[in-house]
Amino acid sequence: MFKDITGGITAPQGFKAAGVKAGLKKSGKEDVAVIYSTEPAAAAAVFTTNTMAAAPVIVSRQAAEKGKASAIIVNSGCANACTGEQGLADAKAMARITADLLGVAQDEVLVASTGIIGVTLPMEKVAAGINKTVGELSVEGAAKAAQAIMTTDTFAKSCAYEFELSGKMVRIAGIAKGSGMIHPNMATMLSFITTDAAIAAPVLKQALTEAVGVSFNMVSVDGDTSTNDMVAVLANGLAGNTVIADSAGKDYQLFSKALTAVCIDLAKMVARDGEGATKFLEVNVSGAASFAEAKKAAMAIAKSPLVKTAFFGQDPNWGRILCAVGYSEAAVVPEKTSLDISGITIVENGLGVPYDEHALRTVMAAHDIVVNVDLAAGAAKATVWTCDFSYEYVKINGEYHT
Amino acid sequence: MFKDITGGITAPQGFKAAGVKAGLKKSGKEDVAVIYSTEPAAAAAVFTTNTMAAAPVIVSRQAAEKGKASAIIVNSGCANACTGEQGLADAKAMARITADLLGVAQDEVLVASTGIIGVTLPMEKVAAGINKTVGELSVEGAAKAAQAIMTTDTFAKSCAYEFELSGKMVRIAGIAKGSGMIHPNMATMLSFITTDAAIAAPVLKQALTEAVGVSFNMVSVDGDTSTNDMVAVLANGLAGNTVIADSAGKDYQLFSKALTAVCIDLAKMVARDGEGATKFLEVNVSGAASFAEAKKAAMAIAKSPLVKTAFFGQDPNWGRILCAVGYSEAAVVPEKTSLDISGITIVENGLGVPYDEHALRTVMAAHDIVVNVDLAAGAAKATVWTCDFSYEYVKINGEYHT
Repeated sequence: MFKDITGGITAPQGFKAAGVKAGLKKSGKEDVAVIYSTEPAAAAAVFTTNTMAAAPVIVSRQAAEKGKASAIIVNSGCANACTGEQGLADAKAMARITADLLGVAQDEVLVASTGIIGVTLPMEKVAAGINKTVGELSVEGAAKAAQAIMTTDTFAKSCAYEFELSGKMVRIAGIAKGSGMIHPNMATMLSFITTDAAIAAPVLKQALTEAVGVSFNMVSVDGDTSTNDMVAVLANGLAGNTVIADSAGKDYQLFSKALTAVCIDLAKMVARDGEGATKFLEVNVSGAASFAEAKKAAMAIAKSPLVKTAFFGQDPNWGRILCAVGYSEAAVVPEKTSLDISGITIVENGLGVPYDEHALRTVMAAHDIVVNVDLAAGAAKATVWTCDFSYEYVKINGEYHT
Repeated sequence: MFKDITGGITAPQGFKAAGVKAGLKKSGKEDVAVIYSTEPAAAAAVFTTNTMAAAPVIVSRQAAEKGKASAIIVNSGCANACTGEQGLADAKAMARITADLLGVAQDEVLVASTGIIGVTLPMEKVAAGINKTVGELSVEGAAKAAQAIMTTDTFAKSCAYEFELSGKMVRIAGIAKGSGMIHPNMATMLSFITTDAAIAAPVLKQALTEAVGVSFNMVSVDGDTSTNDMVAVLANGLAGNTVIADSAGKDYQLFSKALTAVCIDLAKMVARDGEGATKFLEVNVSGAASFAEAKKAAMAIAKSPLVKTAFFGQDPNWGRILCAVGYSEAAVVPEKTSLDISGITIVENGLGVPYDEHALRTVMAAHDIVVNVDLAAGAAKATVWTCDFSYEYVKINGEYHT
């Protein structure tokens, strides 16, 4: 239904992007990105629920309420969080400088930052970086933009799809940055999505909220909800489809599915690239009383340091998995619970069962592992994506100095 | 007010203990312990809230309801959790065997287990071990009993106090085991407390619940609430003080303080000996709207892998601490928040302030570190004890095979 295409976030018509080296990252790599829609776009965004929300989150929240935007300015290397009045002024300045260069209104520019908390932005470098980035905006700039939003990420995260909507070919694409401080609550990490579909802003917001609920909000790397999380989508309508004006019709369903597919793709890439990760874990909980209960149990498993270190050690220590279910507060029938790891049954009716040890060693040695738990308490299910906890995780975070 | 004394859990009059090697631990160390009161004692206990509660928890819950007990039988090396009907029968058998040997009623024996989850007990070894342990019961056996309840603990945890109650000298003592799967909810890990004070069982239960609320429930090592957590206290009345029959008088206050002191001592030892810990962290949150809010913020800081790895790396990455406060959902006034680390002010009015870098390096290099956060949102406070997250933590839990 959705065709994978190349081109990243500039694959949809009317989008340009760029990423440049502005000197904010110690590594000297790309650290300022701009995503620009040549036509004013319907906009929607969801944000972190952290009460210590960073300055760019405060500024973008206001801008997103307008439901219309032309550009997103992002920097890595500094989160502009816990920076008080100065931080707020700097975030506004980022929007203003970008807006002036692009000839759009200041409140039609979303601002995002990621990196170290508690440090103010070196605004001279940022301003010069924005200048340079806007000068380099092009359809070819998508890859550099995806690189410029990375912090401890080991690879750039990007995807793009093409599909038909009311007889018109529509494109949707996204980039994301994750790696650390990943435990979304409403929104997550940074992700920016572009589409040339025509859709009204309130409907776009609804589709985004639904998509985030089953994608970014189902990822945990370390259980820490960041101060800067943000997922924003710009829809400029250049595909020429009939404007999706409400959530009742088939077009909404299709668009919503495509948006969800993009969000799930990116969310899985974020979990796969968790700091120090050596394993990618998909945790499926079924037989729950509700989606919320299934998510609670799956998240408890995904967040447990004991479960995560066991997978790092390739140890099928299933007691830790059932223990996490037990303290998750999800309804469960212990004497009917079952568990399999990548298809190999380990627990049936709440008790360990004999299994082929060689086969289990093989699946535990694989990079991608699926954990399936049945709570035997209902019909709802949920999937959470996460990674293991390794020596490298401790190294990265013990040595990531201010 | 309370005098430190030697002798461990047999320091109170009328208590005997022993710990023996029954072959349950691969290391070959002590793994079965009995704590025995020569006089029937008032008993109270609190238990894990994990819905996958282990068989010994289920058995001890029933016994504790009676408010009267003579002995506690404990094994390490196997948690007897997620073991179904067989596990329940085995836990009951442990009580029965102990009761028969001591000549007391089966429901006056509390049962506790700790170790690997999902494996049934080797009951022949357990039975032989109980036999041997009961044969060795003595006032000198306290230290061996403290050793026999250890799993990944690196040192035995024990304390004892003496104080005066209605003109009589009273003793109270306790042992605990912790190290991993430590994030209490109502009760925690294993801890057994003995006292020769005379106190009615319902009042003892009230005092224990209060004491656990500000001690064991304020410790987190890894955020995992175990299937086997239990804190039990036996009070045999041999000190001869006027029986504490209600919670109104001065005697209750004093006894309650002593019990709380024992619980806090042991709780701090558990955090200090967290798996792989290289640092002991005391997290004080003040200026909260309520104790519950203060605890929420302190626990979020204590549980954050990003905060814990930063302390391991001796990195004063204060943004991570404020970020944890931000997602804890505790009420906070971000622009008035302050933070100091072992007395060195790092954040004032929500912003980083200049500090003496040499002095901060010195306190970050110390083993014991105090983190003080003021939320500026009220007058309540709470203290949580925890430890850092090290390479060793990953090693211990990646290699702790079934």
